[in-house]
Amino acid sequence: LTAREDAAALGGRVQGVIPPLVTPFLADGRLDLAGFEANLEAFAGEDLAGYLVLGSNGEAASLEEDEKLALVGVARARAGSRALLVGTGLESTRSTVAFTRKAAERGADAALVLTPHYYKSSMTAEALQRHFEAVADASPIPVLLYSVPAFTGLPWPPGLAAALAPHPGIAGMKESSGDIGLLGRIVSSVPASFRVLCGSGPVFYPALCMGAVGGVLAVANCAPRATAALYQSFKAGDHARARRIQDALTPLGVAVTSTYGVAGLKAAMDLAGFRGGHLRAPLLPAPTAVRETLWPLLERANAALA
Amino acid sequence: LTAREDAAALGGRVQGVIPPLVTPFLADGRLDLAGFEANLEAFAGEDLAGYLVLGSNGEAASLEEDEKLALVGVARARAGSRALLVGTGLESTRSTVAFTRKAAERGADAALVLTPHYYKSSMTAEALQRHFEAVADASPIPVLLYSVPAFTGLPWPPGLAAALAPHPGIAGMKESSGDIGLLGRIVSSVPASFRVLCGSGPVFYPALCMGAVGGVLAVANCAPRATAALYQSFKAGDHARARRIQDALTPLGVAVTSTYGVAGLKAAMDLAGFRGGHLRAPLLPAPTAVRETLWPLLERANAALA
Amino acid sequence: LTAREDAAALGGRVQGVIPPLVTPFLADGRLDLAGFEANLEAFAGEDLAGYLVLGSNGEAASLEEDEKLALVGVARARAGSRALLVGTGLESTRSTVAFTRKAAERGADAALVLTPHYYKSSMTAEALQRHFEAVADASPIPVLLYSVPAFTGLPWPPGLAAALAPHPGIAGMKESSGDIGLLGRIVSSVPASFRVLCGSGPVFYPALCMGAVGGVLAVANCAPRATAALYQSFKAGDHARARRIQDALTPLGVAVTSTYGVAGLKAAMDLAGFRGGHLRAPLLPAPTAVRETLWPLLERANAALA
Amino acid sequence: LTAREDAAALGGRVQGVIPPLVTPFLADGRLDLAGFEANLEAFAGEDLAGYLVLGSNGEAASLEEDEKLALVGVARARAGSRALLVGTGLESTRSTVAFTRKAAERGADAALVLTPHYYKSSMTAEALQRHFEAVADASPIPVLLYSVPAFTGLPWPPGLAAALAPHPGIAGMKESSGDIGLLGRIVSSVPASFRVLCGSGPVFYPALCMGAVGGVLAVANCAPRATAALYQSFKAGDHARARRIQDALTPLGVAVTSTYGVAGLKAAMDLAGFRGGHLRAPLLPAPTAVRETLWPLLERANAALA
Repeated sequence: LTAREDAAALGGRVQGVIPPLVTPFLADGRLDLAGFEANLEAFAGEDLAGYLVLGSNGEAASLEEDEKLALVGVARARAGSRALLVGTGLESTRSTVAFTRKAAERGADAALVLTPHYYKSSMTAEALQRHFEAVADASPIPVLLYSVPAFTGLPWPPGLAAALAPHPGIAGMKESSGDIGLLGRIVSSVPASFRVLCGSGPVFYPALCMGAVGGVLAVANCAPRATAALYQSFKAGDHARARRIQDALTPLGVAVTSTYGVAGLKAAMDLAGFRGGHLRAPLLPAPTAVRETLWPLLERANAALA
Repeated sequence: LTAREDAAALGGRVQGVIPPLVTPFLADGRLDLAGFEANLEAFAGEDLAGYLVLGSNGEAASLEEDEKLALVGVARARAGSRALLVGTGLESTRSTVAFTRKAAERGADAALVLTPHYYKSSMTAEALQRHFEAVADASPIPVLLYSVPAFTGLPWPPGLAAALAPHPGIAGMKESSGDIGLLGRIVSSVPASFRVLCGSGPVFYPALCMGAVGGVLAVANCAPRATAALYQSFKAGDHARARRIQDALTPLGVAVTSTYGVAGLKAAMDLAGFRGGHLRAPLLPAPTAVRETLWPLLERANAALA
Repeated sequence: LTAREDAAALGGRVQGVIPPLVTPFLADGRLDLAGFEANLEAFAGEDLAGYLVLGSNGEAASLEEDEKLALVGVARARAGSRALLVGTGLESTRSTVAFTRKAAERGADAALVLTPHYYKSSMTAEALQRHFEAVADASPIPVLLYSVPAFTGLPWPPGLAAALAPHPGIAGMKESSGDIGLLGRIVSSVPASFRVLCGSGPVFYPALCMGAVGGVLAVANCAPRATAALYQSFKAGDHARARRIQDALTPLGVAVTSTYGVAGLKAAMDLAGFRGGHLRAPLLPAPTAVRETLWPLLERANAALA
Repeated sequence: LTAREDAAALGGRVQGVIPPLVTPFLADGRLDLAGFEANLEAFAGEDLAGYLVLGSNGEAASLEEDEKLALVGVARARAGSRALLVGTGLESTRSTVAFTRKAAERGADAALVLTPHYYKSSMTAEALQRHFEAVADASPIPVLLYSVPAFTGLPWPPGLAAALAPHPGIAGMKESSGDIGLLGRIVSSVPASFRVLCGSGPVFYPALCMGAVGGVLAVANCAPRATAALYQSFKAGDHARARRIQDALTPLGVAVTSTYGVAGLKAAMDLAGFRGGHLRAPLLPAPTAVRETLWPLLERANAALA
């Protein structure tokens, strides 16, 4: 397959719900690959389009390269025909290229490339464009752009997606700002072959209304069934049900991201019967009081399915 | 009518598109009431639910009280059965109460009350709640809450709408942050009798999807027909057309707010055959180059109606 | 005197400590002119260079014009030969000019003109420059520029002071961001005749080191003696003592501004034997617990004088 | 030596000017160790207290571990008795500990530990405190805390330095926000044995006034003599000269940090006869026009020495 065919083929596969997998750790901080695998096994029966490994919720920033590759390997073995997206973005272009190649060798279907962001004021639209183009030029697999200002502190330049969409190796974008106006402007500025994925649970339904083809959503880790039902309701044209599920999911979605972060997400997964596991320091575990807060939010999300 | 009946009655009337009327000035800075009236006459034939006088786009911050009341009087005479919303929010509770009463005397149907914001760090949820309650207690007309962080620098506390919704004198809210996640959380936290109006043109369609009942939108001043068509498409269940019009309206909506501000809006109105008129200093007029940029955006918005 | 002589004369008089006077209110919200006068009487014995009436700490945003002029009148009667600065900035250029003239008639020595800020994104360096020039052109008294981003949300354009310094009616600036790098850049970009006043208590000493000629400081309302002693120590070349007093003043200065706002300042004034008085809603009074927090901070500030 | 003695000994050595060394690259992106060494040789004759390797200006975020250790090795060989600080902070506590140990083995005198920042909303004062304590517990060399909000997007919690100062392995802090009020509050909250270094060139002199014992300043890479002269003037009690040099250094200091970033710093070093060298992508080189802007700023800085 040529790169363009790869990108088009990938675009067809990322339509729907994709959980950004968490990385469970043991109490001593070591990787809990068994827990990771157990989650994949549990997710196998859900209506998901694929998986993202090494995203922000996967604590990628706290993993060593060998750990990252081990996670990719396990996910590949368990993903079957589902799309396997792997977060490969690092601060420098050369290290991003090098790691993207390694992820591809281990079976990644696409590379999710985060905006470099340490040198914020230098990350102009031009610098970002050159970075993404260089990575896509060198990558053996399609590239998805990734913007998440809550973590990077870097807003997405409005015209950048349109500038990068013609590149045959760039298949689309994960837009996690939660800014639906921005997402709408991106969707309407690119050809349909450039797929926009929503990265913010509380705006999944309106993002679909504005042309997103799916969602890479933290909340899908702890409420995969309700998240998938929202998507299917939208696809079936049932806006009323999609919005009802969105309303039920939103408090949980907010809790496991902006309010309590990855600690909240892992606690909610534990409560929901998945394997959230320990966090890696400096992240601290969610206090018991938070766990008690999460339980009714999980119940409300699941009640929307009745 | 009791206050509660007023609020309910008002709620039924603010469903649809409401332009936040601009205030045209003469070249010497004096009020151009004839221009203001001409716009109302031109809008009479459009499918609008009402008018907002003395909003942010009306340069309320730069008007004297007698000018404000003159504008309310003219708008009342021209509004007919359409809802007449009047911006009455000032920094102190007592001056807001006093001016709200005067606006009611001149025929306002509802008071749009901006969050006080100069003492930002002191404007806690509690301070804002007490302010809105005191204004609503004293107001002879229903109150609509108004949040516009781009101007005030003040984010809206997530739970405040739910705390204020039970007040019989508070009919709803204009939410102008453009944050659809926040708008969705507000809508799902209040009873249906509390009406949420969208105040950001680029997210009008997704706001309607999330339960907003209408929009108070700058862009409705220069493209009233397309804006109303978006609303009617949504009401008719034609999501595809609503989104298509949204996509066509968005570049114009962005240009006449975040990019070029009130100067851009007035220039676009002039181009569209309305009376934008001069600005009051310190606002500067849009340069000629901006006017040339606006023309194709207006054409694109109107082409969506074909 | 010509305007230039006025500005030069004023410059000579604003060297030192100037409290931005609070406006005491009665419990029912009415102006407490007696309390205001009592403070002026108490301050008469302190080593102060002047007074600012109608600043941010004076709750100017919550006052009506007749109240403002009454305060100016009382201050003029009590100020004697001290410099009387009056905050006259409003959102529009024309209302700022009109009120500046009224303040001058009532005896103001200089007008402190706040940056207009409601239309933030339109307040370019050019718009601000034209505004200040128009006000200074029309003002019968010297103008001092005033930037306070904590309230306005508007950063000061680095080159604006240098652009305005040549105007014969512009005497200087009150810089209240607390950004000493910015203050230093301003001081080194203007002639010595353009006086820079520091508006942030916790950086008064370093601001003096960088060339500020005085301070308009909230903390001077509740600890005038220590604040003046800091200034005199600096003038005498006693850096060690100036810094020691600064260290002792800083916790109080932070408490009565960023932490507890005007409510904290008024509470501290009450504790110190001045007349803070009530606030005007929507500002809420400081809780009792805050008052208990303030007491040791006042003691620490005064202990530095021993 | 015990850890406490190490920390105390280090504190005595970091008083003065310390350039955060840049990392020159070749045109193809590889490390230019010869250029790095040439700079150390050139700096040997300047009045500097030490060096920082692997700081923000050293593009540490874009370096691989083997490259980092090579740079430490070269710097150690060239540093002689000067203090060798090494940036060892990474996102996870365990990787920070591991790399700190390796840096110590290669001869680092102290570890400069950046605040983890990717998971911004989770980086509470408690999370940061535990992180720094864990690193200091495990580190064979003294730890210096490092806060640089312009890159991390994370403000420094006001009380954190005081909470960490008692730790025997924590010797001080590099405070790079440029907020002199914050720096002053930190200095006055810790014992004198906890050394505060200023990390912002435009406020070096006022930082010294407020109790900083030295500066780790980008501008020291391109104007080491003027920067050192500022420090020596301050130490000699010559405030007038210190401020004069500060004024002359500030435009250059702003240009090589906030305005043009590392690209500007490297260009200025090239102009000044040092070896700035190429940048590593995604950082882009400074355009020719920027180089022309920098030249007079260098001249102005050096003229202050005359």
